[in-house]
Amino acid sequence: MSEASETTVDDVRDWWSTGISEIAPNLINFRGYPIQDLIGHVSFVDTIWLLVRGDLPTPGQSKLLEAALVSSADHGPQAPSIAIARMSATCGIGLNNAMASGINALGDVHGGAGQACVALLWDMKQRMDAGTNIDDAASQVVQEHKTRRAYVPGFGHRFHTVDPRRDPLLNLLDDAVEAGEISGDYVACVRALEQALGRRSSHATRLPMNIDGATATVYAELGVPPELARGLFVLSRSVGVLAHAWEEKQSGRRIKGPIPPPLTAPYTGQAERTL
Amino acid sequence: MSEASETTVDDVRDWWSTGISEIAPNLINFRGYPIQDLIGHVSFVDTIWLLVRGDLPTPGQSKLLEAALVSSADHGPQAPSIAIARMSATCGIGLNNAMASGINALGDVHGGAGQACVALLWDMKQRMDAGTNIDDAASQVVQEHKTRRAYVPGFGHRFHTVDPRRDPLLNLLDDAVEAGEISGDYVACVRALEQALGRRSSHATRLPMNIDGATATVYAELGVPPELARGLFVLSRSVGVLAHAWEEKQSGRRIKGPIPPPLTAPYTGQAERTL
Amino acid sequence: MSEASETTVDDVRDWWSTGISEIAPNLINFRGYPIQDLIGHVSFVDTIWLLVRGDLPTPGQSKLLEAALVSSADHGPQAPSIAIARMSATCGIGLNNAMASGINALGDVHGGAGQACVALLWDMKQRMDAGTNIDDAASQVVQEHKTRRAYVPGFGHRFHTVDPRRDPLLNLLDDAVEAGEISGDYVACVRALEQALGRRSSHATRLPMNIDGATATVYAELGVPPELARGLFVLSRSVGVLAHAWEEKQSGRRIKGPIPPPLTAPYTGQAERTL
Amino acid sequence: MSEASETTVDDVRDWWSTGISEIAPNLINFRGYPIQDLIGHVSFVDTIWLLVRGDLPTPGQSKLLEAALVSSADHGPQAPSIAIARMSATCGIGLNNAMASGINALGDVHGGAGQACVALLWDMKQRMDAGTNIDDAASQVVQEHKTRRAYVPGFGHRFHTVDPRRDPLLNLLDDAVEAGEISGDYVACVRALEQALGRRSSHATRLPMNIDGATATVYAELGVPPELARGLFVLSRSVGVLAHAWEEKQSGRRIKGPIPPPLTAPYTGQAERTL
Repeated sequence: MSEASETTVDDVRDWWSTGISEIAPNLINFRGYPIQDLIGHVSFVDTIWLLVRGDLPTPGQSKLLEAALVSSADHGPQAPSIAIARMSATCGIGLNNAMASGINALGDVHGGAGQACVALLWDMKQRMDAGTNIDDAASQVVQEHKTRRAYVPGFGHRFHTVDPRRDPLLNLLDDAVEAGEISGDYVACVRALEQALGRRSSHATRLPMNIDGATATVYAELGVPPELARGLFVLSRSVGVLAHAWEEKQSGRRIKGPIPPPLTAPYTGQAERTL
Repeated sequence: MSEASETTVDDVRDWWSTGISEIAPNLINFRGYPIQDLIGHVSFVDTIWLLVRGDLPTPGQSKLLEAALVSSADHGPQAPSIAIARMSATCGIGLNNAMASGINALGDVHGGAGQACVALLWDMKQRMDAGTNIDDAASQVVQEHKTRRAYVPGFGHRFHTVDPRRDPLLNLLDDAVEAGEISGDYVACVRALEQALGRRSSHATRLPMNIDGATATVYAELGVPPELARGLFVLSRSVGVLAHAWEEKQSGRRIKGPIPPPLTAPYTGQAERTL
Repeated sequence: MSEASETTVDDVRDWWSTGISEIAPNLINFRGYPIQDLIGHVSFVDTIWLLVRGDLPTPGQSKLLEAALVSSADHGPQAPSIAIARMSATCGIGLNNAMASGINALGDVHGGAGQACVALLWDMKQRMDAGTNIDDAASQVVQEHKTRRAYVPGFGHRFHTVDPRRDPLLNLLDDAVEAGEISGDYVACVRALEQALGRRSSHATRLPMNIDGATATVYAELGVPPELARGLFVLSRSVGVLAHAWEEKQSGRRIKGPIPPPLTAPYTGQAERTL
Repeated sequence: MSEASETTVDDVRDWWSTGISEIAPNLINFRGYPIQDLIGHVSFVDTIWLLVRGDLPTPGQSKLLEAALVSSADHGPQAPSIAIARMSATCGIGLNNAMASGINALGDVHGGAGQACVALLWDMKQRMDAGTNIDDAASQVVQEHKTRRAYVPGFGHRFHTVDPRRDPLLNLLDDAVEAGEISGDYVACVRALEQALGRRSSHATRLPMNIDGATATVYAELGVPPELARGLFVLSRSVGVLAHAWEEKQSGRRIKGPIPPPLTAPYTGQAERTL
């Protein structure tokens, strides 16, 4: 067959080449490090960084990533991702399947605010690199979102007026700036944004930084691109997804719907009719 | 409506009750611990244990869980889970969606050997608690698998004759036994199983403990039930899934199939025919 | 590299060989039929049968499959699969992703009763082929389920005492038996089972055939193996999953949880504590 | 609890209200039609239209939808969606899970060309409604895509120079225009686009209408919004996804990776190093 003669087995293998892991008989290296050297010596968080980014983090970087991963690990069953995992776990599928459906919901709206906020911080930084001062950059960004009636990602929350995760993360970031481990550029940006939003708002609609804003600042300071920030958030939330799916599995419930029987969903459509 | 009058709003809320996280305005507690106390003070691995199991681990328990999570984090693109995530990442969906499809494949066959091995270790322990000595229990288990022509989960590998992850994990387990942090009962079981398999085998078909056997021993010693062991494996492998999906996204490829174009899948079916 | 020299490109292609579709430049054949002959001449239901089973159905077979597919297409938002798709659709992911998470929940418990009922009908048929009369076979099966406190799949429903889909499907099956299109063996089995269950039950716990029982009879009469019966059910329910995901997308809601805000999930766990 | 007193059970039920199906004890209506009236009398394709869009189609509309659904049902294992479903099916998960991962890949790039083409046809129509003649509108659209170096969705294919599905679908569309069942506006648009692309192209790079262009024309003529067109494509391709997952399940393979063992993925990353 002619097509077979044009493509070699090496072409086929190259189609699947990777710079992440080397797997050969009796050899497993992650980014060049033998797995037997990593086990017991390198933390799980550092392994995450290593696999995703290619090198081991410094202790300061590791501490910040760890804090971000801890912060987002759960936010309870009101979140669709968690509710989906819990319902799925009662349907006769594996924990892996229930987890899959949960994280599948962490899309642009439910899981993308952190990603969008990193992109926003990059955008502010570019304006500043081009000569705009930080407060003007923040005001511009806020104004542009207002003009197109968009949320500023990373600020405001449905029911936390002060998100309890904001201050500990900002404190860790401040410490890391002081220790020279990160530049602090994005910490300054996010604070300027928070102030710009505060100036615009009456008390009732004040929009404090939320968890997405605080973790986005961590990710921006660590050099994590916006889309990868979503990936790391997914890893973090996978912990809550697993915990909830497992709690539900242990309950023994079967086919759990969103509301308890005998409640049913009201029908609001076309009245009964004949063909 | 009668059904509404029988069910109260508290019934509805109770349908979604949880013992994992308390979420209220400006309050997020994981298993009773305020999130602001955890961030910066408790590791990601300990947070995993806390959310999934209800309490913080001891340092010895944490170290073993960390080692198991590091061990399983990746095994390259030959694995269907990783290949699926990589192909998905080229199809115009989010990283969360690509990750979801990857872990969705970690079913009974691809992700369940660890779970099955924990169950096997529990089974051996029960026989011993009932009076059977350890070598007899191991021989019984091996013989029963042989009789029904089943794999003994946790032993043997397609191309690792000596899995490089086996010894570091067993060494950590031995250290933990010596330090009194774990009982060592399951470490003894898994070694007895390995010996019983070795006695049965010629050199060519020797079945040494694999990564599933070694991590299953960790999970059994930590009191993790079989099904939850799968969940923790999924968390671990999610790191590799993310790393590979991200590497593929960065390549810019679109609609990556399993083999490089112009190769196509041969058709082996019914010859062309007319209606 | 030695491994490359052992495996040929034809081996690689053969790894992906299929008897379903032939795809070549300017040629697409489904099971041997040129796609241009099928379009406009063969129904979607017949295409389903063709692709899944290898040949076109007779008109009588097609009519039964069509009826089964219509019957199961939706059962409202109380079902986890539908609720999951609706919630997912508000999270900033594509319709395909929302559909995926919905059907991912159609597992052994939520989507497997039809599959289990086909297997049960096969089991009854085997007993009869071995000489047991139909009523005894039915009684045996019912008794065995009772002994292990298991549901008899295909019978009983949470809130339909008479499932409105039962009679139309049984009538179509009876017509097909009369027309000689199917054997009627499984129709007889399912009726005998229903009677055996009825004999055991007081009025309050009567267990009439449900939709899974009725469609399982269709699938068994059509020669569909149990597991594939689940696959066909998934195709059918995918229609409802799409309709609901789309209805929800059009509403414009964002991050829809299982219960309306400000309702939250009650926390029932460990009281607040310090590290 | 105060929040419970503010929200009523009816609020909870309304949160899940739907205009698609009415489900009550012994009653199932799809868009007002009792299910017992539909079974045996209404086709699966008409049920799809009914559930998704709210009313039954005319015979002419039904015929076009049926043709579009048949056309897209499969395109072989080179497609990531199909390959993913096949690999997943060997991993010890259900057919529903394997199907879920397959359709999860039908994202903006792999499954979105039809959706994008409907949007493009809407855009052309708007220009024409605003007074631009059809050839100018087509030229504008082509030019704009060229300027931003974007594909024109619905045209060109990796290896079909003449897609065998194009002509039968266009013929059915022409027939429907002649019979007065559809306006023909979008048929004219898509043909004008094809001509505009042809004028720009040398023979070697000619970009004929592909399956996405042809089905998008069907969907546009039927009044299907762009995003829903993707949903209908997903339903169609679900058939191929099921057929392939089932073929693979029957093979008995376990943990099928993308390339046959002993082939492995080459490692292209960092050389071996020590901590």
